[in-house]
Amino acid sequence: MDFAFDVISTEEYARQRESYGPLTDALRKLIDIGIHTAVDEATAREALEHLEKAAVLLEGEQRRATSTLRDAQSGRPIAWANPAVGLRNAIAPPMIVEHNRDGSCWSEFTLGPAYEGPPGWVHGGICALLLDHILGEVASLGLTQPRFTGTISLKYLRGTPLGQLRAEAFVERSEEIKTFARGYLKDEQGITVEAEGVFITPAWARDGDGSSKGGLATEAGGNFS
Amino acid sequence: MDFAFDVISTEEYARQRESYGPLTDALRKLIDIGIHTAVDEATAREALEHLEKAAVLLEGEQRRATSTLRDAQSGRPIAWANPAVGLRNAIAPPMIVEHNRDGSCWSEFTLGPAYEGPPGWVHGGICALLLDHILGEVASLGLTQPRFTGTISLKYLRGTPLGQLRAEAFVERSEEIKTFARGYLKDEQGITVEAEGVFITPAWARDGDGSSKGGLATEAGGNFS
Repeated sequence: MDFAFDVISTEEYARQRESYGPLTDALRKLIDIGIHTAVDEATAREALEHLEKAAVLLEGEQRRATSTLRDAQSGRPIAWANPAVGLRNAIAPPMIVEHNRDGSCWSEFTLGPAYEGPPGWVHGGICALLLDHILGEVASLGLTQPRFTGTISLKYLRGTPLGQLRAEAFVERSEEIKTFARGYLKDEQGITVEAEGVFITPAWARDGDGSSKGGLATEAGGNFS
Repeated sequence: MDFAFDVISTEEYARQRESYGPLTDALRKLIDIGIHTAVDEATAREALEHLEKAAVLLEGEQRRATSTLRDAQSGRPIAWANPAVGLRNAIAPPMIVEHNRDGSCWSEFTLGPAYEGPPGWVHGGICALLLDHILGEVASLGLTQPRFTGTISLKYLRGTPLGQLRAEAFVERSEEIKTFARGYLKDEQGITVEAEGVFITPAWARDGDGSSKGGLATEAGGNFS
């Protein structure tokens, strides 16, 4: 795991967002349109040529650092590339996570056809993706502390409809190396999915006492989102 | 929930796959390239114009039925639009799920930069998305039976590296309306994430005895993937 983030200035952040944000938005739109298009073969071929030309242009210069930048002001990582929150990853809705003063997090977002499981409803695994992410963010204090997902459990109370949704998460308690987080996915009528997760502080991040507890990181396992 | 699938012939399936499959593949490539592109503003604008032209072309004719087709030969739904397995959804890797004779399922697939959480590792929520889907498929006999996710629990034994992976799932046991499924995500070294899920048969699908058990569907809740 690489926690050595590069720092990016607020100006550079704004510049990159302005240059590349519209590209990601255009791709999100194309993902939605592409799923249900029924155009004839010639039109599909013409569209494909445009996509291929765009790919050649964008491939011209690639820089790997975009997932590991840290904002100079907030100190928080800029997760450009993240599939849940990444402003530059077209897979992400994106979920923009807001941090309350008490440490809890929330996000409001809209899920369209690309996230559909059964007709009209969000795929259960997409609910899991978004809840895993927001629980991980709250447990890691906005991704400023390394915390790996140890376990996460989801309880589906009812189907989650496509459209406007809200996710919330908070830390329930902490015990030594474990942080217990809880969260919800909600539609207008209330909670649709409940989540609880246990997040682990890796050995190398425990008060500089990595040597004596070194084995635990591997034993406890986990995954940082 | 709409389980009234349209039926599609093998020829029509092949035609749609040939016409639209390359579009989805081009979008998958663009998602990856878009995340890390560092081209100048003029080049980004030129690429954006191509994306916008492609969108106009593909928007010309839209048909909603693509998520609810059923293959005439196998009887299985064709989940074109699904964000885990959909051949026409650029969000999906896609995971192509194979069904063994004993009912168990497996899939081998490659996850690239679009699915990255921490540098080099799969986002924990993406592991959850894919495991939720394959457990749901095995519990619903290849999506031929309605089964809603009641609960799913994931245990992250260690980080899952980007690259070639394998998912597996099987039904452990069934008790009345509940199907207990279990599965794994694996890399070359073995299991990285364990999953277990409880899937619920909705009241309306229980041996035509929906009236006396009608309340359970709501109580049990759930989400069909």
